Order: sequence, then structure tokens, then C-alpha cells
Amino acid sequence: LIRPVILSGGAGTRMWPLSRPGRPKPLLALTGERSMLQLTAARFQGQQEATDPIIVAHESHAEEISRQLEEAGVTPALMILEPVPRNTAPAIAVAALAANPEDLLLVMPSDHAIERPDKLREAVFAACRSAAEGWLVTFGIVPTAPHTGYGYIRVGTQLRPGVHRVERFEEKPAREMAEAFLATGRCYWNAGIFLFRAEVMIELLRHHAPAVLEAAEAALAGAASDGPRLRPEEQAFARAPSISIDYAVIERARQVAVAPVEAGWSDIGSWEALYQLKSKDEAGNAVAGEVVLHDVRGSLVMGDGVTVAALGVEDLVIVATADAVLVAPRHRSEEVKGLVEALRTRGSKAVD
Amino acid sequence: LIRPVILSGGAGTRMWPLSRPGRPKPLLALTGERSMLQLTAARFQGQQEATDPIIVAHESHAEEISRQLEEAGVTPALMILEPVPRNTAPAIAVAALAANPEDLLLVMPSDHAIERPDKLREAVFAACRSAAEGWLVTFGIVPTAPHTGYGYIRVGTQLRPGVHRVERFEEKPAREMAEAFLATGRCYWNAGIFLFRAEVMIELLRHHAPAVLEAAEAALAGAASDGPRLRPEEQAFARAPSISIDYAVIERARQVAVAPVEAGWSDIGSWEALYQLKSKDEAGNAVAGEVVLHDVRGSLVMGDGVTVAALGVEDLVIVATADAVLVAPRHRSEEVKGLVEALRTRGSKAVD
Repeated sequence: LIRPVILSGGAGTRMWPLSRPGRPKPLLALTGERSMLQLTAARFQGQQEATDPIIVAHESHAEEISRQLEEAGVTPALMILEPVPRNTAPAIAVAALAANPEDLLLVMPSDHAIERPDKLREAVFAACRSAAEGWLVTFGIVPTAPHTGYGYIRVGTQLRPGVHRVERFEEKPAREMAEAFLATGRCYWNAGIFLFRAEVMIELLRHHAPAVLEAAEAALAGAASDGPRLRPEEQAFARAPSISIDYAVIERARQVAVAPVEAGWSDIGSWEALYQLKSKDEAGNAVAGEVVLHDVRGSLVMGDGVTVAALGVEDLVIVATADAVLVAPRHRSEEVKGLVEALRTRGSKAVD
Repeated sequence: LIRPVILSGGAGTRMWPLSRPGRPKPLLALTGERSMLQLTAARFQGQQEATDPIIVAHESHAEEISRQLEEAGVTPALMILEPVPRNTAPAIAVAALAANPEDLLLVMPSDHAIERPDKLREAVFAACRSAAEGWLVTFGIVPTAPHTGYGYIRVGTQLRPGVHRVERFEEKPAREMAEAFLATGRCYWNAGIFLFRAEVMIELLRHHAPAVLEAAEAALAGAASDGPRLRPEEQAFARAPSISIDYAVIERARQVAVAPVEAGWSDIGSWEALYQLKSKDEAGNAVAGEVVLHDVRGSLVMGDGVTVAALGVEDLVIVATADAVLVAPRHRSEEVKGLVEALRTRGSKAVD
């Protein structure tokens, strides 16, 4: 049986002004009516092969997450509430310790879009046998462009249909290298989706990242339990190094496999990425909320409880909330981070 | 003695989303810290030659106007509160009837900017003798461009230094005609500022616009008084034709004079006009409120209690309020009216 582990951390600064520390990207309905978390939880909800999920999130988002899960008809087996963010390795360590040792844990970020979840499920089900045998299975997204913002996974020999050994993990590449990766047909994007037996991960952590495991064990020993909510002890948890599971374990382990998956995946890493995902009108505009456009083309225009009126502009991102507005060319939407930093430096409340 | 009559009507749709029916252009601090009404009232405040002003405004704005006048240290002699808007002729008729017959009334719109009010005062003082003698004195703005959005006043022979007969009123011209007007050096913009004896205006109304005068007389006969507030009787006032004082009287009267004035005047008829007025930073941006810009040029960016972050755009107007945002090229800011109409058609609350 597969136990989804949904990681709902991360601030999502690049989706400012919609995403805020108190309402980060997983909790936003970016692509439609449901939040990214709800969409993630729905992917294995009701599948015979899967059980209720474990959610790992920051303490401050507990209420909103509970509300959203209830709305989506999802009953979490466990909600692990982190007192402080410590990246993915400690989050996964705590989840692995809290689960049954034999559980097949399916770790999924909660802020990615997957257009064809059936394709992901297919790949996951195909990989279960390998994971049960002790393999750490990653899922490699078939790349559609020479993206320089992702790590790549190079496939090796086949283990069984749909599952290969990982030959090598490749760092985020420069443009030329990314094009070379794409040309090989054997390199996939690392989407941060992993399948493994809980006890396998614990042993790997013990070997490759003992400080993470020890902090997680101590934090769980002192944890407070409240229904499905589990609160690791703060001081112990805070001692865990802030490190990703990729660096801490996955890129160091030996028995690592990759299952290619072609599922219409996007990490929605920028407004431009969201624009690409959304359906457009005849003028190439993607809109959400009360929006009135005149002579506008190729733009993403979103009003979150705010009316947006635009005329005579092209290829812009316009996102408005009750306390902040962003206007930028779509192709420069990655630079939003810089604006947010400038606002933070000024002590602006619009980034709280 | 000069009795200022400040007309505070008009919706100012072109300044949406800042201006709204409940908070129209005169009540906004567009150019600095003080509202257009406060700046207008200040122009003759404390001048020996002037008395406390008469304000004519819509009933619904009474409280905000009182607050703003008090803040500016202005005590209105009278606040005439219109139950329904009826353009300038009925407003001026009521003011003329409510004033002393011998008063020199100086009618001023409350939503224009005047950079050098001393120049206006000089022109007004120079024109007092002519007004006292029974002339209806208009003030002609020395044009700085062949503007097609204003009516023009063509000067005739001089009456006395600084005061001329009006040779003719010219309708809003086409571009070519506007250029010809500018070239004559004898055509001025009609800014809607007038000086006349109250009883002279009443006689002119009786002759040229008797329906206006009768409605105004009946509305005043049934008026309710409350301190300085005077509320004309609604049914009578509503019977007044909705007509401007220009069409009703000024362009038809015989004894009409014009005093040229070069005072840095602007009717702030569009966001572009406001941009031109405001001081700009090195990149040519005019900003108000919490605004963070990166690689932005030639833009007007205003946040009214809302943070605005923009990058990589040029020559735009970005105006954000808590419930609405406008984005448009500066040179197309006159088209805002169309967006507002589209929103009104949809029943949007953002134009209420």
C-alpha cells in the first residue's frame, strides 16, 4: 500500500503578491478552483493501492490546511506540524519515522501542477515492486524544453518496464548543457517526487545524514499529539540541519531508480509558468477574478478580490490583491523575487 | 469684496479607480497632500479682498467636504447641497440667488490645478472693476499646446489693462483649428472661472435661461437651512434643465470680458495630465504611495493604501486602490472612460 506524504512547506516568493508567508503557494488556487494542496491530495485519493496521506506543513498553516483537506474530502492519516522550516530532509525523516516501517511512502511536493495524474499514478504503480525491494525510486519528468532551472536525472539500465537505474544526477545546467541533456533523450527533470519504504529511508538517513535523523528522532520523542496532528518538539527539530532530501540522501544513495513520467508537469515556478498552464482567450490572455480588458494581448491578469482593468498592454503579468499589485513583463516574471526583497528591506507589510 | 463660489460637482470618471461617485475628483489629493477642493479654497483664503466662500456640492459629499474645509482652516459662508446634479447653470443660479445682489461672485471649479495661484489672484483683482461695472468676466488660460479638449475664448479690444472684450467663444476645435487658434496668440482656454455681480448673473439667467432661474428660485423658496448648510428643495431643483453656465448664459451674453491668466493651470482631465503635473524622478516616474520600481521609466504609479511593485515597463499608468487597479499606457489614459463604462455595464462594484 502506498502512503502519500505531501510536503506543504515553501514560501513561494516568486508568486508574490498572491503567495505570502501566511498563505503560501500550496494553499492557493492558482490553476483553477482548487488549491495546489487539494489537487495534490486528490491525485491518490480513493485509489485502492493508496491510504490516507501524511501531510507535513508549518504549524501556522494547520487550520487552513485542515479546512482545505476537509473541503476536498481528504482525511489525513497524520498532519506533522513543523515548528520551524528545515527544508525537505528533516520533513521526510519525521514522516518516515512516524509511518510504519513497511509503508511505501510516496513523497510529493504540494505546489506542483500535474495535468494528467493518471500518468503519474501509472508510473507510481509500476515502480511499487522496485520500491518494495528496497529501491529509492525517483520520478523523472520527460523534459519539454532545455530548462536551466531544474536538476536532471540521467537514466541507466532498465530494472523492469518503466523503472531504470539512475546513472547520474545532474546539477541545474547552463543553457548549452541543458540542450545537450534534452538531445540525449535519457535525461529527465527531477520533480522531487519519490517512492520508498519508510525503513529504507531511515537506514539511508542513518548512513548519509545522521544529524538529520537524530534531530527527527528526538523531535518525535518529545512530540505532542492532538488527533491527527503531531507536533515535533521544537528545540530538537530546530537542531536538524536545513538540507534537502536530494543533497542529504538521494544523490548519495546507491539503490536509486527513476521512473519516467510524462504527465504535463509544472512546478509553477513563476507567473510565466502559470500563464503557460492556464487556458487563454482569443487574444492570448489568461484571466482570473473580475477583469476587464481592452486591446490587451498575451497577458496574465488576476484579481484576487480586486477588480483589474487594463488597456493597450501586451505580454504583461498583472496580479492584484487587496494590499499589493504586481505589474511586470511576463518573460521577466522571475525577477519578482528582487521586488519582494526590496519590499522586505523597506519593511513593507505587503510581503508579510 | 469677492465671494468665491466653489463648484464641487462632477464624477471625474477619467480618474478612476481613484475617483468614485462617493469620492469624486475634487475630494482627492491628486497633486500632493491636499485635496483639489482644499487647494481651490486656499487660493483666496485670507485675502483681504475676498470673503468666506460659498460651496456648491452634492448632498452626499457634505460630511467629507466639511471635514476637508475644516482641515484646511476654511469656514464656508454657505454650503449649498444639491439633491441631484444639474450641471453648472442651476448651481450658479442658486449661489447667485443666495448671495447678496452686490456680491462679486468668483466661480471656480474645484478640481483644477493652478501652480501659481498668485497669477490667478492678480488677474481676478485686475478684473474686479469691470465685474463691478456689470461685465461678466471670464478667465482665459494662455494655451501651451493646441489642445482639442477645451473651448477657446478669442479676445477682442481691451477694456482696461488685463481685461478685454470677448470677441467670440470657440467650440472645442479639431487639431488643425486648435493649431490655428494657438498661432493667433489671441485665443485662450476657457477654464470655467468667472467673475460677476450676483444680480448681473440673475438678470442674465432671467433673460437667457428663465427655466433655470425659476427652478432655482423655487428650490430656494422651499430650502432647508442647517447652520451654513442650505438644501434646495429637491422637486423644484430637479426641474432645472441640466445645462452648463457656458451654454446657458456666458456664450449668449453681450457684456462678456476675458482676463488672460498664465498660472500653470490644468484641469487634470486624465492620468496623463496628472503625470505631466507631478514631479518626476530621474527615470521620469511620478509615484505616490508605497511603490517599488525596477527598470521602470516614464510611468505614473500610484498606490492608495496598496503597495505597487512594477518592473520592466515604460510609459504606463498604474493606479491601485483596495478594490480596483488600472493599467494602461499613459498616452491612452483618456480611454479609461470606456473601461469604467464596461465595468458599469457588468454591474461591477468597483465603479460604485
